[in-house]
Amino acid sequence: MPRKPHIKPPTPESRRVGYAIVGLGKLSVEELIPAVRTSQEGYVAALVTSELDKGREFARALDLKDSDVYAYDDFEALAQREDVQAVYIVLPNSLHREFITRAAKMGKHILSEKPLGMNAKDAQKIVDTCKKAGVQLMTAYRCQYTPHHWAARDAVQGGRLGTVKLLDSIHVQVEDDPTAWRLQKDLAGGGPLPDVGIYSVNTLRFVTGQEPEWVFATLHQPKKDKRFREVEESVSFLLGFPDGVTATVHTSYGAFKTDTLRVMGDRGSLLMDPAFTYRGLKLSIEDSAGTTVPSFPDYNQFGLEFDHFAQRVRDGRAPWTPGEEAVQDHVIMDALYESARSGEVVKLKGVKKKDAFRGTKPQLPGSGD
Amino acid sequence: MPRKPHIKPPTPESRRVGYAIVGLGKLSVEELIPAVRTSQEGYVAALVTSELDKGREFARALDLKDSDVYAYDDFEALAQREDVQAVYIVLPNSLHREFITRAAKMGKHILSEKPLGMNAKDAQKIVDTCKKAGVQLMTAYRCQYTPHHWAARDAVQGGRLGTVKLLDSIHVQVEDDPTAWRLQKDLAGGGPLPDVGIYSVNTLRFVTGQEPEWVFATLHQPKKDKRFREVEESVSFLLGFPDGVTATVHTSYGAFKTDTLRVMGDRGSLLMDPAFTYRGLKLSIEDSAGTTVPSFPDYNQFGLEFDHFAQRVRDGRAPWTPGEEAVQDHVIMDALYESARSGEVVKLKGVKKKDAFRGTKPQLPGSGD
Amino acid sequence: MPRKPHIKPPTPESRRVGYAIVGLGKLSVEELIPAVRTSQEGYVAALVTSELDKGREFARALDLKDSDVYAYDDFEALAQREDVQAVYIVLPNSLHREFITRAAKMGKHILSEKPLGMNAKDAQKIVDTCKKAGVQLMTAYRCQYTPHHWAARDAVQGGRLGTVKLLDSIHVQVEDDPTAWRLQKDLAGGGPLPDVGIYSVNTLRFVTGQEPEWVFATLHQPKKDKRFREVEESVSFLLGFPDGVTATVHTSYGAFKTDTLRVMGDRGSLLMDPAFTYRGLKLSIEDSAGTTVPSFPDYNQFGLEFDHFAQRVRDGRAPWTPGEEAVQDHVIMDALYESARSGEVVKLKGVKKKDAFRGTKPQLPGSGD
Amino acid sequence: MPRKPHIKPPTPESRRVGYAIVGLGKLSVEELIPAVRTSQEGYVAALVTSELDKGREFARALDLKDSDVYAYDDFEALAQREDVQAVYIVLPNSLHREFITRAAKMGKHILSEKPLGMNAKDAQKIVDTCKKAGVQLMTAYRCQYTPHHWAARDAVQGGRLGTVKLLDSIHVQVEDDPTAWRLQKDLAGGGPLPDVGIYSVNTLRFVTGQEPEWVFATLHQPKKDKRFREVEESVSFLLGFPDGVTATVHTSYGAFKTDTLRVMGDRGSLLMDPAFTYRGLKLSIEDSAGTTVPSFPDYNQFGLEFDHFAQRVRDGRAPWTPGEEAVQDHVIMDALYESARSGEVVKLKGVKKKDAFRGTKPQLPGSGD
Repeated sequence: MPRKPHIKPPTPESRRVGYAIVGLGKLSVEELIPAVRTSQEGYVAALVTSELDKGREFARALDLKDSDVYAYDDFEALAQREDVQAVYIVLPNSLHREFITRAAKMGKHILSEKPLGMNAKDAQKIVDTCKKAGVQLMTAYRCQYTPHHWAARDAVQGGRLGTVKLLDSIHVQVEDDPTAWRLQKDLAGGGPLPDVGIYSVNTLRFVTGQEPEWVFATLHQPKKDKRFREVEESVSFLLGFPDGVTATVHTSYGAFKTDTLRVMGDRGSLLMDPAFTYRGLKLSIEDSAGTTVPSFPDYNQFGLEFDHFAQRVRDGRAPWTPGEEAVQDHVIMDALYESARSGEVVKLKGVKKKDAFRGTKPQLPGSGD
Repeated sequence: MPRKPHIKPPTPESRRVGYAIVGLGKLSVEELIPAVRTSQEGYVAALVTSELDKGREFARALDLKDSDVYAYDDFEALAQREDVQAVYIVLPNSLHREFITRAAKMGKHILSEKPLGMNAKDAQKIVDTCKKAGVQLMTAYRCQYTPHHWAARDAVQGGRLGTVKLLDSIHVQVEDDPTAWRLQKDLAGGGPLPDVGIYSVNTLRFVTGQEPEWVFATLHQPKKDKRFREVEESVSFLLGFPDGVTATVHTSYGAFKTDTLRVMGDRGSLLMDPAFTYRGLKLSIEDSAGTTVPSFPDYNQFGLEFDHFAQRVRDGRAPWTPGEEAVQDHVIMDALYESARSGEVVKLKGVKKKDAFRGTKPQLPGSGD
Repeated sequence: MPRKPHIKPPTPESRRVGYAIVGLGKLSVEELIPAVRTSQEGYVAALVTSELDKGREFARALDLKDSDVYAYDDFEALAQREDVQAVYIVLPNSLHREFITRAAKMGKHILSEKPLGMNAKDAQKIVDTCKKAGVQLMTAYRCQYTPHHWAARDAVQGGRLGTVKLLDSIHVQVEDDPTAWRLQKDLAGGGPLPDVGIYSVNTLRFVTGQEPEWVFATLHQPKKDKRFREVEESVSFLLGFPDGVTATVHTSYGAFKTDTLRVMGDRGSLLMDPAFTYRGLKLSIEDSAGTTVPSFPDYNQFGLEFDHFAQRVRDGRAPWTPGEEAVQDHVIMDALYESARSGEVVKLKGVKKKDAFRGTKPQLPGSGD
Repeated sequence: MPRKPHIKPPTPESRRVGYAIVGLGKLSVEELIPAVRTSQEGYVAALVTSELDKGREFARALDLKDSDVYAYDDFEALAQREDVQAVYIVLPNSLHREFITRAAKMGKHILSEKPLGMNAKDAQKIVDTCKKAGVQLMTAYRCQYTPHHWAARDAVQGGRLGTVKLLDSIHVQVEDDPTAWRLQKDLAGGGPLPDVGIYSVNTLRFVTGQEPEWVFATLHQPKKDKRFREVEESVSFLLGFPDGVTATVHTSYGAFKTDTLRVMGDRGSLLMDPAFTYRGLKLSIEDSAGTTVPSFPDYNQFGLEFDHFAQRVRDGRAPWTPGEEAVQDHVIMDALYESARSGEVVKLKGVKKKDAFRGTKPQLPGSGD
């Protein structure tokens, strides 16, 4: 009689990976929590926040109990929560290492927002800590988990564009709140570069599977603008990849929202525009025959991350974007800041191996098992 | 220290309107339940389904108790549930009247999927029943609640296109499961016309605010195709609006997914393409100066419906799309079937009043209060 | 040293087909004359006009001699001009038959603007006259000669869209000069239908290769608007093709410039938008894999027509769009007017044969020889 | 009776400026000659070429006499041709100075293709020569004459995007003929930079009205590829404009045809894509309200150049893009090559004045007089 459900209900919580969300900012509230709740493999089991009252309001709205909300000081109480297998760190960058270290000590697996640390050294310590504690560490590079970005990567690496020649990416937006923690150097570690520019760096590395050999950067920091007393307004840079392939990149907190990625080969080109948004990604591939915009089934970018990490928590294999992947971005960003300071090209240690810092390939939605 | 939430948590359940979702099909599971859970003004308090086991799985996944799941036979047990103020009817069309009647008897307010009934007479009886019972009845015409469709309506009625001259809409898709209830006449009442064609009819009426005066239709039903033994594959038709404004419309279960709406005035035109999807709507407005694609903040179409009806449940005012709005669509669809049968133009009773069948204007997201 | 021309110069005039342009309206002046001058196979050898002074100005600007300009009364002087092998008739519709007849008597081949005549009977007489005189007659349906339209036809007939199900086309524009000859019934024969609506009719027939079996039309003629005292403002209609394939069409002189053509199959769809402009045509093909916009080399639509007819003049084979092709459009347009008058469906004589009224396939640019 | 021409015929040749086209390459044959023939203010009066036979074929096809065709050695015979007031230099770059000098000696005004010379010093000598001879010199920067580019400039300078922050441009294409003169350093002066990259440099300067203060470039020249034995395959660079505004630019002969220009301000952004093609330019302007694509009447880019220079020849005022404008591009390109060689930033002499190297504003089509 009444129509039957075509889709199976989510895995019951008892068989899913329970996450504690650490930090209740805009991203957690608007994106992560709704996403993790529809995830097939994970669920929100606890919230950790400095604002207990607000945390409890959210908990209630989300059908958690008041006792599922923890203050930062009580973070270690999660040790007793066997249903909490993983924590998702959504805190200002400067707090990542502390909370990851505390979580690792409890034996919790860790999914951390990017950038992983304050710089390469800090990030490397985080990686070392997790390794020593025997817990999984994944950096939340959501653009390495979407069907759109994998289709771009496949076009680049599968030869559809011919030999890759040039790269271009822009990720800029206006940050207009002078009090935002993102504009405080001791909390954020830097300005737009580690926050939004990192998407360009990381995704260019992902679609090519290669690592830059040198960088050159220029940085603009108008200190008269009270937003930019501590961090830069923008960084514009070149990344030199092997075989003369060069990327041009802009990142900024001062320019109207733009996010694109372009790969030019000798037989075709691809454009992602928008390239880094939560929704509405668009990929176009052009060659002498014309332009194609592939279509994809609906998906939630955060849900795909949750599912991938839940699988790795269960099977113990390295996630596709482990801590090492993040360290490499920090190495590059450190070099970019150094170049901007010195006005000179900064060389990086060569990395020949493809996907040198990545782990187990994610399973794409609709790709079967 | 850690960033503060920029958005307030949802209204606590105690102050929100509790909905019982009646019917656990694809739409409920994939769209309505996720949407209602993020609604500011409503929440899912109960599920009604013929498949109790599956219902309980969903309930658990959704943090409801087993006892929140009801069989159709136990529907009347909801009478005792004071926290259930409204039911959302998501059943095959032929069951609408029965369940709306049973809900009305319990004093529950009713949000019903479209089409409201099997035909105009059936729909009118539904309206009469609700009126007599003193409960609110809203038809779930989600395209009358989105910022995109309101912007289209404003462009049409605000003179931006000049005088409106011609209309065109297409809503077609492939239904390839010959066992689907939508293909059974006694369950669905018709084929693509009341299921997808109704979007074109309803939205053309909405953006113009006017009612057609005559219709002409042709219908194609290839009975050799086992999908179309009982219902038509497609209907193509003309709607004659006042002042010589004519609409051309296609609806079909046999053609590749297409959904568009175009309004042509003497000074400009607008195109919605896609016009009726759950996500990714696009509105373009063209005049001699060029083409403009307005941007809108993110929203969930179903959430907007839930919020609107929750407000009406609380304030007792007529919803924007009450039962009467649905009766009028049925009157037009009855006339279309009659025209297709007779091969002749069918005249409709003139309706001069603008928005003749609509109630309280919805509040658009971001429009303040 | 200096770079060599990559392209060969046009065929010398002595080996090209000389055209007399009959009528010096906007189309001749802005499109035809520039196009024919860059044609590889034709050239302008003479001008025929009522306004000798202006004709001579154009002649001089175009490096013709004053003696290459003829008054309508002196049309027969062209009989002596052996270098004029063909005439291009660009006159008000009511004058087509007279001038085609006069040209045929001189043994000149005839390329005529559409619509060929005032109605089917008139057009048939034109065809008979040319046949009797043994001269070639081609109707200038430029959309049957472009790579874009042929790619659309190939997608439709090659199965790329699956089985064709539904068709939709719009061709409307604002005619705002109340004194235009197009608005005078005795000069134009009708309103927007034979002038712009004919593109939809003709191109739908072309891409499917099939003929409609019935029509239904509604017509709007607001006589208070002084532009529409004699001819209709708009016609909206349905065309019934074989196997239940139905087309919806709008044509108008009262609505903002819009020209589209859509074909929906069960596995994909195509959209041309714009579909009928002189430049900037765009074809999109969509299926479950995504959307593709094929690219084409540059071409001039009128140049392609001139070249095709010049080839036919030389080889004596029937052009792809001979007079018979135009008679069929007139048969359909006559039926549309009759339907609009009677308010009833009008049946047409069945035509089973594909491309029943067409001749020698045109050679597409870049397709080799 | 027959419709009247709505447009006036071109100015008779006697009142137009006669051009001698010097060089019969692909650009001359495919674009310039057709364009100049439809120009309102100029016409082709003579051809100068090394291949007299081909020249005569073109002349005949174009209704010139055999005697209108000149060998390079006979260039000075044009001195006697009073009807030839201007020459259009369409030769390999290395020949510009010689032919411009010879033309200046004859008192002919000169329109020259870009790049004006082989480098800044060469270009400056050209400017000095023309000044001394008292003849007009205009560089054929067609992108400074189109309504699209002026609309972009107006959006940038009129504040529509807020304060300009960042710039990005790409102009790349595949040059696959290893024997092309463009790949010979002594003929071309460089590789893609002075040929296609110059569009990005010149147009970024034009839309902002400002001059870069420093440059940094990296260059790729795979000498194993026989095309790039003498010139670079690609140059990727940064241009530092005043107030921290930075441009990223790619130019290449090795990558699939791409040409874009993007300006990002703090309140909006604009994209031209394609930005530099002869036809089909597209401008999009985006801000928080959405995206707008302005429409423009048809025009021919080369025709606009011819008309502008013809006006300047007549009124004696400096053209909008005189030789000085080209010298400045050479200064920047010289600095880019120096930076690529040294691996260091190269500073440029500051230029505060807006539009420092430009002359009389062109009149845009449709802008009245």
